[in-house]
Amino acid sequence: MNLSLNQWTTRRWSVAEAVDGCVRHGLEAIGLWRQNVADQGLAESVKLVRDAGLRVSSLCRGGFLTSGGDALDDNRRAIDEAAELEAACLVMVVGGLPGVQPGEPLTAGASRDLAGARERVAEALAELAPYAGERGVKLALEPLHPIYCPDRAVLSTLGQALDLAEQYPVEQVGVVVDTFHVWWDPRVFEDIARAGRRIASYQVCDYLHPLPEDVLLGRGMMGDGVIDFKPITRAVQAAGYSGDVEVEIFNADVWAADPDEVVATMKARYEDVVLP
Amino acid sequence: MNLSLNQWTTRRWSVAEAVDGCVRHGLEAIGLWRQNVADQGLAESVKLVRDAGLRVSSLCRGGFLTSGGDALDDNRRAIDEAAELEAACLVMVVGGLPGVQPGEPLTAGASRDLAGARERVAEALAELAPYAGERGVKLALEPLHPIYCPDRAVLSTLGQALDLAEQYPVEQVGVVVDTFHVWWDPRVFEDIARAGRRIASYQVCDYLHPLPEDVLLGRGMMGDGVIDFKPITRAVQAAGYSGDVEVEIFNADVWAADPDEVVATMKARYEDVVLP
Repeated sequence: MNLSLNQWTTRRWSVAEAVDGCVRHGLEAIGLWRQNVADQGLAESVKLVRDAGLRVSSLCRGGFLTSGGDALDDNRRAIDEAAELEAACLVMVVGGLPGVQPGEPLTAGASRDLAGARERVAEALAELAPYAGERGVKLALEPLHPIYCPDRAVLSTLGQALDLAEQYPVEQVGVVVDTFHVWWDPRVFEDIARAGRRIASYQVCDYLHPLPEDVLLGRGMMGDGVIDFKPITRAVQAAGYSGDVEVEIFNADVWAADPDEVVATMKARYEDVVLP
Repeated sequence: MNLSLNQWTTRRWSVAEAVDGCVRHGLEAIGLWRQNVADQGLAESVKLVRDAGLRVSSLCRGGFLTSGGDALDDNRRAIDEAAELEAACLVMVVGGLPGVQPGEPLTAGASRDLAGARERVAEALAELAPYAGERGVKLALEPLHPIYCPDRAVLSTLGQALDLAEQYPVEQVGVVVDTFHVWWDPRVFEDIARAGRRIASYQVCDYLHPLPEDVLLGRGMMGDGVIDFKPITRAVQAAGYSGDVEVEIFNADVWAADPDEVVATMKARYEDVVLP
């Protein structure tokens, strides 16, 4: 397993700057975000990572499948982009209850039909998985911490993600194990073992306590929160995962810091608290 | 199933005032809190509920078993109080990671040993369950939403609570189904059916979106949040539960409102959105 920089950790860096940063710090892989790739240009981004000899450990992100609209078209574009970038997977954040907006008060249009939203995810996946398979792209279903169930992901546990993923060939649909989202789950070790080769991405960051007011920004540098990483890393290794380990931190303080210092800290903490 | 007022919903009411309020609004049951009972006096509280002909649907709360200290002694006192009050159960909020304080920044003494904390809960329960059984008190293990895993309850799912409870006679250890804590769980219907007679308490309140800064206060009046109550109520009924349904709301606006209006709203919403 090798360390990878998810570029959202150094949010102010463009794709070009993040690629340079990875090379400067001796990293072999990078996780890219679609909007940054769009800003840089897809062809230019492909050239940058290839010239630098970097692996693209993931493209973030597809998903938001629960509210209809043009979600399928947008996801097909995301799959095409992941194919161009030869990303190891396309991370799928599946979306919350229809009509519930992140951070916004509920309106009369908000749905409470959680079972229905989950059914829509399954239906959309049935459309997208073969499309991804034809292009050699693996969709990586990401269960999110239940705190995000209303507005970001009705996929709430690794077990639930596996129930969906296992309906498809392992080359088409895998799962993300993200420490922030799964650390509390009493079934997580059992489900990591069950996942085996379904693990398409292992992402790490800490769970801060107390969470900040905007709970999306509760992702901290490893060692700054309550997660005991080593048992999870050992379980992911034992399940057969040998891909890259992405550090993906959403955190106002981390974003305000010098990105080179963030990457240096990330490397040190990875050795100290993430690797067994 | 009958509606019960958990007195924390009308937080400024003493036990005497809450008992009066229940009678005035035609409620047959009340959920009491230990600190309010202590303020009123245990013997006086017992007399008040008996004279009013109310059932005590629960006593809140025992638990906080993970940090050692005098937790067992305090829980034995809570069991004695529940016996005096003839409460249907003693709600157990088991505690978080040792050394992690609710709402307080992490200190050097904070533990990250989640598996160890869970083991401590199991060990403490082995001490307390027979003591409760001898006094005719049922301990009701309450799984809390995973957002509270660091600081309040390492018991995070109904399935996990059942794994513990099922090691004891059903008269000694049951579980709480609280809509706020379990609504997101993909296994909740399966686990409610599995629980059957283990369900010692059914508590309802809504899950607000977005959550307030103090996430403890994200419990809203039924109908104000994202939960679809009727399927959960139907499942709890189908599992064989015929006890009281407690409304337990922690919410700054509800606490600021006139308690009589809160109870009137609670009754109306119970009919409209909770009962199938």
